[in-house]
Amino acid sequence: MISVTLIGAGNVATHLFKALIKINQIYVKQWFSRDLNIITHYKNQVDITDDINTLTDADVYIIAVSDDAIAQVSASLPFKDKLVVHTSGSVNVHDLDSKLKRGVFYPLQSFSKKATLDFADVPICIETLDKKDYPILKQIALELGSPVKKINSDQRKVLHLAAVYVNNFTNQMYRIAHEIAESEAAEFDLLKPLILETAKKVQDISPYMAQTGPAKRNDTKTIKTHLSLLKSDVHKDIYKLLTQSIKNTHGR
Amino acid sequence: MISVTLIGAGNVATHLFKALIKINQIYVKQWFSRDLNIITHYKNQVDITDDINTLTDADVYIIAVSDDAIAQVSASLPFKDKLVVHTSGSVNVHDLDSKLKRGVFYPLQSFSKKATLDFADVPICIETLDKKDYPILKQIALELGSPVKKINSDQRKVLHLAAVYVNNFTNQMYRIAHEIAESEAAEFDLLKPLILETAKKVQDISPYMAQTGPAKRNDTKTIKTHLSLLKSDVHKDIYKLLTQSIKNTHGR
Repeated sequence: MISVTLIGAGNVATHLFKALIKINQIYVKQWFSRDLNIITHYKNQVDITDDINTLTDADVYIIAVSDDAIAQVSASLPFKDKLVVHTSGSVNVHDLDSKLKRGVFYPLQSFSKKATLDFADVPICIETLDKKDYPILKQIALELGSPVKKINSDQRKVLHLAAVYVNNFTNQMYRIAHEIAESEAAEFDLLKPLILETAKKVQDISPYMAQTGPAKRNDTKTIKTHLSLLKSDVHKDIYKLLTQSIKNTHGR
Repeated sequence: MISVTLIGAGNVATHLFKALIKINQIYVKQWFSRDLNIITHYKNQVDITDDINTLTDADVYIIAVSDDAIAQVSASLPFKDKLVVHTSGSVNVHDLDSKLKRGVFYPLQSFSKKATLDFADVPICIETLDKKDYPILKQIALELGSPVKKINSDQRKVLHLAAVYVNNFTNQMYRIAHEIAESEAAEFDLLKPLILETAKKVQDISPYMAQTGPAKRNDTKTIKTHLSLLKSDVHKDIYKLLTQSIKNTHGR
């Protein structure tokens, strides 16, 4: 039985709590939130607290708070030499207070408040300063049903950056498509199957192999027509830059 | 029973053939390809031909050839006043020869050679010069199990343009993420669940509502860190432009 204490009450902490509480081999010992109201709903399932000094012994402490608060929260912990991990893609493992055994338990997924989440779809990227601390974190990830990967800080940094491209920037492509479609009262809904298909395609083949379209074909006639249809200068700039990027990738 | 003749032997024509041949209410009368070798495999299922002058009477002729060839192929048809449609997102319906009853049967999806395709995931956008020709095209789309939408030329043009953003440009985001991950020998595979989740999210909520990340939060510290990690100037330019675009969208 692994005892785990959660620190923080945002989306990541809440999804982790809901998943960990169901696992027989894991005991969620305490859940800390600065604002007790946010987690009071769970008080019959776990010992909740808003006083960091009441935290008792656990095998692993998971800090899932905003990036800027991680260092301070870790420094305020009332113990030392215990295994403490944060869940951030971009914060250095050394930002955790040096009195602690330190690691990172980074779930590479987009967490939203409402949607239920299957941790099978959440790769957990694990980093530890001491390799002796890796197995227990791996075990927690496996109990969650997640793919697990040991990564170093540099790898975590680039994955977090790459995630911005496949999540935020991709979502902005959807947003621009929405604006373009609506400019002629065409339904964005018609594009939804294509959005899914595009994402599914790269599950099996590389993005390089999956590419199609006017930029890859160097179809200057279609590219010119598209640019003439765009009313927004930013949309035009994005079209030009990404068309050039595709041409570079495919040697045009 | 609706009789349909297919003209062309690319991905769209082949996927259409494979789906239409299974439908009881539709009879695929002939299949024309300039190069008979490409469709000779299907000669026991349908009358195949490489001589345009041998095309006989059918209710609907579907021209699924490259954009540039549509006008010429339609002009070479050995009949007039028959309903002929093309399947292109960007070609004008008037590019079809005026001796014909003209329309467009545009499947808004990415067709690849190998993958099997469920036409339930292929919205068919229909345009006809004469509204009397709409019902038969709608019936074919419904028999395919596709969502059907009547659209005009302007709507089709912007949908085709929007499709470049959600398909080609999005796929290039995946490609860049692949390059960034590999620069530190991190696995692109770890990003695949996030790619799918990002596409699934906008099936239910708008891209505007779905947006998250440093650009939306105006998290200048993370943005600065990301820019310092990027080695490619094009990747940097794309990061800056899309970050600005997200800021514009969300009023930052």
